[in-house]
Amino acid sequence: MKLAIDAMGGDLAPVAPVRATIECARRFLDTEFILIGHEQRIRENTETLPGNVGIIHTDITIDPDEEPVRAVRRKPNASLTLAAALVKEARADVMVSAGSTGALVASGLLGIGRIPGIDRPALAPVLPTFQGHGVLLMDAGATMDASAHNLLQYAKMGAAYSRHVLDVPEPRVALLNVGTEPGKGNALTKEAYHLLEATQLNFIGNVEAREVLDGGADVVVCDGFVGNVVLKLIEGVGLGIFSLLKEQLTQGFTTKMAAMMLKPSLRGLRDKFDYAEYGGAPFLGVAGGCLKAHGSSSERAWVVAMEQARKFVKQDVIRQFSEDLDG
Amino acid sequence: MKLAIDAMGGDLAPVAPVRATIECARRFLDTEFILIGHEQRIRENTETLPGNVGIIHTDITIDPDEEPVRAVRRKPNASLTLAAALVKEARADVMVSAGSTGALVASGLLGIGRIPGIDRPALAPVLPTFQGHGVLLMDAGATMDASAHNLLQYAKMGAAYSRHVLDVPEPRVALLNVGTEPGKGNALTKEAYHLLEATQLNFIGNVEAREVLDGGADVVVCDGFVGNVVLKLIEGVGLGIFSLLKEQLTQGFTTKMAAMMLKPSLRGLRDKFDYAEYGGAPFLGVAGGCLKAHGSSSERAWVVAMEQARKFVKQDVIRQFSEDLDG
Repeated sequence: MKLAIDAMGGDLAPVAPVRATIECARRFLDTEFILIGHEQRIRENTETLPGNVGIIHTDITIDPDEEPVRAVRRKPNASLTLAAALVKEARADVMVSAGSTGALVASGLLGIGRIPGIDRPALAPVLPTFQGHGVLLMDAGATMDASAHNLLQYAKMGAAYSRHVLDVPEPRVALLNVGTEPGKGNALTKEAYHLLEATQLNFIGNVEAREVLDGGADVVVCDGFVGNVVLKLIEGVGLGIFSLLKEQLTQGFTTKMAAMMLKPSLRGLRDKFDYAEYGGAPFLGVAGGCLKAHGSSSERAWVVAMEQARKFVKQDVIRQFSEDLDG
Repeated sequence: MKLAIDAMGGDLAPVAPVRATIECARRFLDTEFILIGHEQRIRENTETLPGNVGIIHTDITIDPDEEPVRAVRRKPNASLTLAAALVKEARADVMVSAGSTGALVASGLLGIGRIPGIDRPALAPVLPTFQGHGVLLMDAGATMDASAHNLLQYAKMGAAYSRHVLDVPEPRVALLNVGTEPGKGNALTKEAYHLLEATQLNFIGNVEAREVLDGGADVVVCDGFVGNVVLKLIEGVGLGIFSLLKEQLTQGFTTKMAAMMLKPSLRGLRDKFDYAEYGGAPFLGVAGGCLKAHGSSSERAWVVAMEQARKFVKQDVIRQFSEDLDG
């Protein structure tokens, strides 16, 4: 199995992806890791590379501010576009990047291409839930103006991914909506509801945003605009509360003392919200493995994303899709 | 000034609205309070009514599960529809209800009607922010499929309300979007961006969901589907984190001890997120005062909502709208 790693994307690149690659390369001897990026800067972060790690050198990167489609078209030799090209040409099974979401989506669509029959691939991050395992959110921002038919395909892909990669035997699929009753919503969700009802999926109906993290659904379907708002809002609210908490707990001697005693508990709570443990968001529906790691991925987050990428390949997700999509 | 209060709507009705009314009636002798609901149940919750409190009896209520438009049409004598009728007939200046959002929106639109020139009224709650005062979110769920022109009107109404009722001299208006750059978004937000740019408003551009609670904007504009998701997600994430926190802090003796010492700090933090302090959501754009209080409004939340309703009338918001909307 071959993993292509965009060594230059993300806030902590190239240090975090390079170190994570070395760690994974030592653990997974059956896997070949291809680091794509500035060779000298990659080598600065390691003494000797394990035998199953290669480097493809490029000093071209895509800036987060660049218009994604134009950037991908104009920079075929950027680290991200090269990674996509490797997957396209079957020289890698899966690629991972922590670069900008827009550029990853563009390089997935233009560089790798769609699975035949899938109109709109979707970003599918797993969100941490308050109870137990996470929930797969689709689409988290790949397509801005989705149709009900797109949402239906998200649901089918999400259920297949949930079953084959996340080990959920019969994934409960829900539609994100403004109320739980069937008639609720905007034109899009009303139509999508009817389409979802008519499938063989384990469709459990509408879920409101208030309950989306309660663990009642395994796959939650929405359009990419709404999904992106959900993803970013959860992060914003979570970070905001923890930083207020920190502020409150460092005021005054008694409070500080007590807070120190609570540190392990509070850290446990924070860890529940640590995106690092939930890996990256696969870009589902493109004709090859394509994984978006969080922009501020730490070494630990990169390791989890690479483990996820391996599982994606092992489970042969793309072949499974073709089978499940007929269902 | 006359306030019409739906004494039967909300989880804690009639106790909370009745008690809050009595408290407000004693404080605001210039205001007449009209409690609409089951007279006997209202009287059970008070010894004697102050002279400036009246009762309009009805034993008809609108159930949260009823289809709103149908319910409002079929139940002209429900507590909520009667409240709207009082405002329509100028027998009250403003109405407050903690009943279902859908029914309030329907009774506002059908019972009171729109301000001439306003295509779609919008629900405008103030969300607590991590820094300082809150942010006005429009629309939080009154209109499901909004046009860019609707969003433009939300921005104008929001800025006017922010200036006249929330005392923000030059409100910063932002568009909720998936990125900060001008070209980002779905068809709706791209078009709305151009419309907003062309106004005299203090339009500060796009804001991402991650930053929406950071206090960088005073008014945030979005369509009602997205606004409803934002509103409910903040509540869900907030409640979820606090309940996890509680769970973590009651495990083991040392933790419990320390947590007890921290109680005031943690309560302070929780209070920052207490919707009760932020009053209700005015339904802006209807031709009379119409305020939605939170469904689980406590007595305290009701008091704040009534104070807000009084300010709405005092500031003559509806006349101000007509003036500001030309700008």
